[in-house]
Amino acid sequence: MDGGTRFAELRARLAEINDLTRTMALLSWDQHVTMPAGGAAARACQLETVGRIRHQTFVDPEIGRLLDDLRDWSEQQDYESFEASLVRVTRRDWEKAVRVPADLQAARTRAAALGYDVWVDARKHSDFQAFLPALRQNLDLTKRYIDCFEPGDEPYDILLDDFERDLKTAEVRRIFDYLKEHQAPLIAEHAHPHEPTRGPFARQLQEQFEREVVRAFGFDERAWRLDPTVHPFASGTSIDDIRLTTRYFDDNLDGLFGTMHEFGHGLYEHQVDRGLERSPLARGASLGLHESQSRMWENLVGRSLPFWRYWFPRLHELYPHAFAGYDVDRWYAEVNTVEPSLIRVEADEVTYNFHIILRFELEQELIAGSFPLEQLPEEWNRRIWEYLGIDVPDDRRGVLQDVHWSSGSLGYFSTYALGNLISAQILDKVTADIPGLEDGFADGEFAPLRDWLREHLHRHGRKFTPAETLERVVGTRKIDPEPYVRYLSGKFGEIYGTALSSQ
Amino acid sequence: MDGGTRFAELRARLAEINDLTRTMALLSWDQHVTMPAGGAAARACQLETVGRIRHQTFVDPEIGRLLDDLRDWSEQQDYESFEASLVRVTRRDWEKAVRVPADLQAARTRAAALGYDVWVDARKHSDFQAFLPALRQNLDLTKRYIDCFEPGDEPYDILLDDFERDLKTAEVRRIFDYLKEHQAPLIAEHAHPHEPTRGPFARQLQEQFEREVVRAFGFDERAWRLDPTVHPFASGTSIDDIRLTTRYFDDNLDGLFGTMHEFGHGLYEHQVDRGLERSPLARGASLGLHESQSRMWENLVGRSLPFWRYWFPRLHELYPHAFAGYDVDRWYAEVNTVEPSLIRVEADEVTYNFHIILRFELEQELIAGSFPLEQLPEEWNRRIWEYLGIDVPDDRRGVLQDVHWSSGSLGYFSTYALGNLISAQILDKVTADIPGLEDGFADGEFAPLRDWLREHLHRHGRKFTPAETLERVVGTRKIDPEPYVRYLSGKFGEIYGTALSSQ
Repeated sequence: MDGGTRFAELRARLAEINDLTRTMALLSWDQHVTMPAGGAAARACQLETVGRIRHQTFVDPEIGRLLDDLRDWSEQQDYESFEASLVRVTRRDWEKAVRVPADLQAARTRAAALGYDVWVDARKHSDFQAFLPALRQNLDLTKRYIDCFEPGDEPYDILLDDFERDLKTAEVRRIFDYLKEHQAPLIAEHAHPHEPTRGPFARQLQEQFEREVVRAFGFDERAWRLDPTVHPFASGTSIDDIRLTTRYFDDNLDGLFGTMHEFGHGLYEHQVDRGLERSPLARGASLGLHESQSRMWENLVGRSLPFWRYWFPRLHELYPHAFAGYDVDRWYAEVNTVEPSLIRVEADEVTYNFHIILRFELEQELIAGSFPLEQLPEEWNRRIWEYLGIDVPDDRRGVLQDVHWSSGSLGYFSTYALGNLISAQILDKVTADIPGLEDGFADGEFAPLRDWLREHLHRHGRKFTPAETLERVVGTRKIDPEPYVRYLSGKFGEIYGTALSSQ
Repeated sequence: MDGGTRFAELRARLAEINDLTRTMALLSWDQHVTMPAGGAAARACQLETVGRIRHQTFVDPEIGRLLDDLRDWSEQQDYESFEASLVRVTRRDWEKAVRVPADLQAARTRAAALGYDVWVDARKHSDFQAFLPALRQNLDLTKRYIDCFEPGDEPYDILLDDFERDLKTAEVRRIFDYLKEHQAPLIAEHAHPHEPTRGPFARQLQEQFEREVVRAFGFDERAWRLDPTVHPFASGTSIDDIRLTTRYFDDNLDGLFGTMHEFGHGLYEHQVDRGLERSPLARGASLGLHESQSRMWENLVGRSLPFWRYWFPRLHELYPHAFAGYDVDRWYAEVNTVEPSLIRVEADEVTYNFHIILRFELEQELIAGSFPLEQLPEEWNRRIWEYLGIDVPDDRRGVLQDVHWSSGSLGYFSTYALGNLISAQILDKVTADIPGLEDGFADGEFAPLRDWLREHLHRHGRKFTPAETLERVVGTRKIDPEPYVRYLSGKFGEIYGTALSSQ
């Protein structure tokens, strides 16, 4: 058989595997959004079965043979072509996947599904003891997963590589050390107590406003959904079926920022080149790059002054009582209040990265077994005190706040901070490319940013490595913390001037 | 290996296949309830892939070997045991499934998913021509499916057997001939023009009322959902995840009867013995028996006078304007109005079966190729005139009204009429067993009926053949049309007395 025929065979097998991946996304979305509670046990089995079949189908030695046969042929193709990229990326994925026994893979999938329900309940009752067995199981499975691979420089490298290919723990540590040195001082500089409006914010109006905002960004009911859930996420079953989830609070509008965040993720998946559909390339290049998109729409856009110049009048109109006495500057200052707080997803831009740094450090200690697992809440609380100077009153607002460990997703958190850093690298580039971009936000014009992101980042999907992709977008392969710290210094220096002068 | 070990192996394989079946149910539920339109093409691929894998996993020769090995062992088990039943039912399913090539199976799944969207659009625009290619493809695939089997007495027997095992076309024809002779005269006797209330019926209140009703029946949010869709159905992903769908109209309460109908289906699936979960026995025994349950809750309960004695005051309270001047007798007469009409799912109990008879006859002609497919609308309209004496103004309200042919589900329709007949056979039995059952409805007591159905029918799931199951419930293996015609004669004779005396 010639290369083209072999490639078509590979493509077809990967398309089926993609169908299973998308099917798992739906099983999971439904579990978190629509499924009645009674369905949990059966759903765990369904996820396990589909996950096992997907894994078995992918690690089939025939895929290895196809990849071997296609090595020369694919190297003759243009590096940027779909063909060369698919073979290149699949080889890397396959070589990792074949190291993981099917039973371990299935056990991880099942433990993740069961762990979710245990976590929801444990968090509700702030009961770490109730969560402990599920956490222990997930951690044990994660360690067994690490053992499947050649030891890297550090065991944690194995986990990180799943989310941010080729990035080393040592490199992340260097970046985070820079933040500890240069970002931490901003907390002391800008933190101040504040008394925000407490609404009340009728949920129906929140939903209406959020839909108006994301529609202006590019959300379209023909290809998107927005639903409430406990721990918001973005998902979907194809390029034209993007599912955002959010939550609503009666006394604040934090849900709005969550929705803009998930929109950023959704847009990345939605603007992948259609030619990549039903292939493993039809996704973002890495979680760090993904998070750069969510944080960009949530913060660099959604917490910017031009954005609120356009949207604040509408918000005021919907909630005249909650915003009595407010002007846009006051609201802008409020949504950018800096204050050490307990919950990562509600943290302001200045303190956020420290929520990540503590998780990054704790995860390495969990893997190393540096302390008995029972002691995790104390270790958590100690670090919150160390980095943010506040006490954790209960585990619900401490170690139980995030879903990730319930599914054994260790290695994931640091990509959130990396995403922040990358978002500022990208903003530097796009504002240089498009003069007046941010002024456009004040006129409700978000299409120029959306289109730039499609052209320079989204359309590539997962064709290139994270470093290669970053280079295409901003011209360097390195994640650089400097633009983000510069962005924070500039923005918050200005805000507190603005805020003070408007009082 | 001993029988027990072999059986555990079979059980595990069937559990995985069940997971895939349930996963397909979710892919399909989501497609019809929550999926953005843009997801349709990818969803068809996902359904095709999961369906193909399920089929391949089931027709694996190893399952045939396990069944052979287990023949003696399973025959030593009690006939009613889970073990004997699973082997017996699986052998029958397997021997049918291995006759169908994987490619044909996948093509049918895919054509069904694609056909659905074509149908939705064609129905909307009343455009049979637009539907024709999808119909032709589904019909061709159905004929190829028939060709996979040894010819029966008639080709249509093959299709019928998928939905109502062992039932022959000739037997259905005999039953329907009885209806033509004994039920048809009731139409002329009871049909009369009427002027129903046109509401308006606010949708939110409809939803509220429907939830109150089905909760009284046994619906519980921990294990059930109720959502709107275009063509209502019942589905679910486990015994404790039951999904009803419905639709709402502004000028009538037909949606309520649809919801009670789907509740009957859902209850059957929900009350299957928990020990059958994750096996092919965790379903209803046949579509006819399933439909007996939906029609029972929709009509024998939901259109009964005792039911409305309890519920009419509440309905009146919710819609005082729509029901000005109504008492329960007038409303009871109205929901039992007999009038030949165009839409099957809105047809009254007296005319309903004739909608089925014409489909049963047309399907046999479609399979036989008795007329060019283009001519189907005329054939449809001719029979509507013949059986119901009315003109079909457009295909939307004619040949395009039902979803079934869009997915190639020929052989399915007759089970609706058979379900009506069985429901009356069961009602005879349950009212004999529980004196005062219907009086209880007037006090809002539906648990006795629900529990009786669980004990005598639901818990068995699919352990026995439809005839064996029917025998356990009503003491005979034959579907008997006499009780249903007797029920209709009694009920409608009384109503029109009641209705007249209250005017």
